[in-house]
Amino acid sequence: MRVVRVYQDEDVRYGLADESTVTLISDEPFAAWEAEGIVPLSHAQLLAPVIPTKIVCVGINYRKHAQEMGHNLPVEPVIFLKPPTSINGPQGEIRIPEGAERVDFEGELAAVIGRRTHKVSPGEAMSHILGFVCANDVTARDIQKRDGQWTRAKGFDTFCPVGPWVETDVDPLDLEIQTYLNGELKQSARTSDMIFNVYELVSFISGVMTLLPGDIVLTGTPSGVGPMEAGDVVEVRIEGVGSLVNRVV
Amino acid sequence: MRVVRVYQDEDVRYGLADESTVTLISDEPFAAWEAEGIVPLSHAQLLAPVIPTKIVCVGINYRKHAQEMGHNLPVEPVIFLKPPTSINGPQGEIRIPEGAERVDFEGELAAVIGRRTHKVSPGEAMSHILGFVCANDVTARDIQKRDGQWTRAKGFDTFCPVGPWVETDVDPLDLEIQTYLNGELKQSARTSDMIFNVYELVSFISGVMTLLPGDIVLTGTPSGVGPMEAGDVVEVRIEGVGSLVNRVV
Repeated sequence: MRVVRVYQDEDVRYGLADESTVTLISDEPFAAWEAEGIVPLSHAQLLAPVIPTKIVCVGINYRKHAQEMGHNLPVEPVIFLKPPTSINGPQGEIRIPEGAERVDFEGELAAVIGRRTHKVSPGEAMSHILGFVCANDVTARDIQKRDGQWTRAKGFDTFCPVGPWVETDVDPLDLEIQTYLNGELKQSARTSDMIFNVYELVSFISGVMTLLPGDIVLTGTPSGVGPMEAGDVVEVRIEGVGSLVNRVV
Repeated sequence: MRVVRVYQDEDVRYGLADESTVTLISDEPFAAWEAEGIVPLSHAQLLAPVIPTKIVCVGINYRKHAQEMGHNLPVEPVIFLKPPTSINGPQGEIRIPEGAERVDFEGELAAVIGRRTHKVSPGEAMSHILGFVCANDVTARDIQKRDGQWTRAKGFDTFCPVGPWVETDVDPLDLEIQTYLNGELKQSARTSDMIFNVYELVSFISGVMTLLPGDIVLTGTPSGVGPMEAGDVVEVRIEGVGSLVNRVV
């Protein structure tokens, strides 16, 4: 099942996408819902598929990315937050902020939480996840280095594109993940290279903060991060999940 | 005006407090509202006075605290986020998490945003602030040092007590701020000692992320931070704002 959020008839609605259509549904995907009409996928204005109260991210979770950033391998996940206002949709533009000299793409697999999640084990985490999205943890690299804390560098409005939909029927543990800049392959890895897998991450985070329906967990980026400029088009493509394409302005 | 949120007749309501009563109001304090009844303040079950979508905090913003933590004075504010799930009310308990060896109080003045705030100047910031609350930026100090990023150490459930109300009629620039542990004075400073004042902070943050009604900006803690243990009672007292008292369990 592919859960989307669309702007339709001057209203924002959840729906379920297949190859060619979107079936609008009567409520949030976390609740009981009924079908309420069908629109063509090609005409749908896709928004970020969820509204998170929290976007929890993980630093340094692929072995090769740790090497390229000059970090030791972590013994525990290092977590940080992007603000909900950084969320961006699959047709949204990434805006380079004033004063940022280098803004990087970081393609990532992200889990969408389906129900209240408090102190669950890795084995229990699976049943708390609604599904998976492609995400881009956009980062102002110069500001990240200057601040020490990563919040500002990763927290600008538009800096968290997610989409195109929440894929509910995929095993996340060994998927190909790729990032393309203007069609050129920049990042390529498999999610099996993660230091902590998605269920271990959700378990770990749920021991700190209660996760709520719609919250998003970004699972870290592979090696190959690099800068983007205005006019560029960046694509995060994940096997079995989808393709997230955003223009930089 | 003192804006409170109360649990009353199996419902959660906003109200306005005076010395002895709470006047319940019909809507959020950001909107137009009408009075809808009065209850005694002494019987009111006070909750966190706002529901933030974001809790934005500032590290190292009093000169003496920078010295005690061994930091240089920042040339720009260093910001970080606490998750909305860390929010705690004026009658809530601070829970020491498993695995945390040292949990510190950090008494702080916090601003509550009253309307959408995007790229405002310090001069404009005043009219975007609904009022001020006492806050406690509770921090697991050992985890903070271990992680480097501060999110986990400061993000546990119950780690952000705020209250007891939003005081809308106070000039925040030169107030006495004190923190007491079991009645003993631990932190004492004036907000005029801040490196960046509250309007400069709101302006700076609004250039990164859009602030929304109910969002909270914590303005940093003075020198004198220290550990708490189960059974302790911690109080953050700010001149002209109020007193926030929480028990540690």
